Amino acid sequence: MKNPLKNHILIDGLQYCNWNRKILEDLWQGGLTAVHVTIVYWENTEEAINKIKKWQIRIKKNKDIITHAKNTDDIIKAKKNNKVAIIFGFQNSAPIENNIFLLEKFYSLGLRFMQLTYNNQTAIGGGCFEAVDSGISRFGHQVIEEMNNLGIIVDLSHAGKKTCLDAIKISKKPVAISHANPFFFHKSKRNIENDVLKKLSNKNGFIGLSLYPYHLKNHNKCKIEDFCQMVKDLINLIGIESIGIGSDLCSNWKDEVVVWMRNGKWTKKLDYGESKNKSIKWPTQPQWFRKGSDIINIYNALIKSGISEKNAIKIMGSNWLNFMKNTIG
Amino acid sequence: MKNPLKNHILIDGLQYCNWNRKILEDLWQGGLTAVHVTIVYWENTEEAINKIKKWQIRIKKNKDIITHAKNTDDIIKAKKNNKVAIIFGFQNSAPIENNIFLLEKFYSLGLRFMQLTYNNQTAIGGGCFEAVDSGISRFGHQVIEEMNNLGIIVDLSHAGKKTCLDAIKISKKPVAISHANPFFFHKSKRNIENDVLKKLSNKNGFIGLSLYPYHLKNHNKCKIEDFCQMVKDLINLIGIESIGIGSDLCSNWKDEVVVWMRNGKWTKKLDYGESKNKSIKWPTQPQWFRKGSDIINIYNALIKSGISEKNAIKIMGSNWLNFMKNTIG
Repeated sequence: MKNPLKNHILIDGLQYCNWNRKILEDLWQGGLTAVHVTIVYWENTEEAINKIKKWQIRIKKNKDIITHAKNTDDIIKAKKNNKVAIIFGFQNSAPIENNIFLLEKFYSLGLRFMQLTYNNQTAIGGGCFEAVDSGISRFGHQVIEEMNNLGIIVDLSHAGKKTCLDAIKISKKPVAISHANPFFFHKSKRNIENDVLKKLSNKNGFIGLSLYPYHLKNHNKCKIEDFCQMVKDLINLIGIESIGIGSDLCSNWKDEVVVWMRNGKWTKKLDYGESKNKSIKWPTQPQWFRKGSDIINIYNALIKSGISEKNAIKIMGSNWLNFMKNTIG
Repeated sequence: MKNPLKNHILIDGLQYCNWNRKILEDLWQGGLTAVHVTIVYWENTEEAINKIKKWQIRIKKNKDIITHAKNTDDIIKAKKNNKVAIIFGFQNSAPIENNIFLLEKFYSLGLRFMQLTYNNQTAIGGGCFEAVDSGISRFGHQVIEEMNNLGIIVDLSHAGKKTCLDAIKISKKPVAISHANPFFFHKSKRNIENDVLKKLSNKNGFIGLSLYPYHLKNHNKCKIEDFCQMVKDLINLIGIESIGIGSDLCSNWKDEVVVWMRNGKWTKKLDYGESKNKSIKWPTQPQWFRKGSDIINIYNALIKSGISEKNAIKIMGSNWLNFMKNTIG
């Protein structure tokens, strides 16, 4: 089948896979221009550096199809060279500890996205699962300023509402919620309420729409038509420019990894995260989004739903690229 | 001069000195039974372990006058052997990162006090200098339970008000504010409001009264009579059993250390902590408390102020000992 997006920018704003050649080839064959990949959740400084080293080796080994991108020029160059651009990100601020100076170190290693929190409170702000969200702390103010100065995207996925609102207000550069959906689509603690979405887009912020079952209406039984209707509603709410895809695709992991994602090292008891029936298994993906290359299914469904080709193409990646131009350069 | 407390327990609930033989000899000659010493403020896991190693060497080198105490039996034994018992504590939770399992590690190295926060927010709770105090976080609940189980004292010095109230409520063992004064005595962010003091003592908690100038009425010009009046007012408010001394004595440091205490690694800008006139120097101690052995001045002044010998002796140390019996064993 011919890829109608062959000449366009396709960006997935977050994936966390147990990467291997097969998965990378799927992205490459699917025509992905760039993918923001999660390096760590709960890891400390040293562990994060080791994970980055592993990525450096992975990129070298697969240099025929992937390349490391540190800015939008790198992404455009990757597209020209028929490679998938890999953008490094942290889904937590654990690796920087309480140390403002570590941001520069990780920036120099290629970090371009950092979530301030992952479900739980950090020294920077409140997580979406906390009973009380502090908002952005004293350290958090310093961290956001430093991320702005360096060119690391402030990622508010998994943050609490007050932390989102504070960060949108404080940050001098636009901020992202790399992987979540609107709360009006599915009532999850991870999804984002309308007032936050509006303030985000008013400051040229960005949301990458998630395909993780717990963020979807009817979870893995979500119909692609419902997803597209949500996109249309969201365009009406905040405009087209702030919207992209951040699939949150987690492929090829054993179930113990979803348990680790939720529990890290912070509790000796079992925390079930977003699962309401205490599942300790990975949720099943909707049939229409099971691998990175399935992003084409979303494009086709958006067109079918009545969204213009021009707008669908923006959602597929050029919006992300513009946002990144304004943030990481 | 004969020491009227020679046969009694004298405990200082917090000191942070640049320790040397002379300072240790002052404690020993002053008849101090035990001192809780601060090992770290902003240090990470590895740095904290290194600081503990330095203390182990210091204890070995000065074993004729000091000894490491891990419980109240060790303190009583030290008294019998005419040595000053050293109790290890952290003034922050930075060394345990986001890792519940590190508490056991540090417990095994002798840690018996841990502050949840130092002025700023941590993954556990809110600091006293934060605009918004989250209270105890999800991780914080786990940490307090683990500290209770192991026998590490939950120290709420430098915590925000909500964090204090939450911790008092959550903790199954009594908690301490090792070094602070009542807010009614001096209106400082570091001092403690009456409602917190009452709830603290209702659950057999403890406050060590501070001699750090910024916590004192009129700072270093504080009269010892005013300090003793505060003690009497505090006894009226919460009863005698919850009260001791936690001098917060910081001796023999260069001024750059007070700057580091305030700024750690969390900001590139200068933070002045409790100093309202932007001083970057150590505040001068009141004339009547300049070294650890000056605790005798407080005893004498308490007696002079009309407090009974029995009660003054309790404040000097036996209250701390009873509290520790209930917490570290």
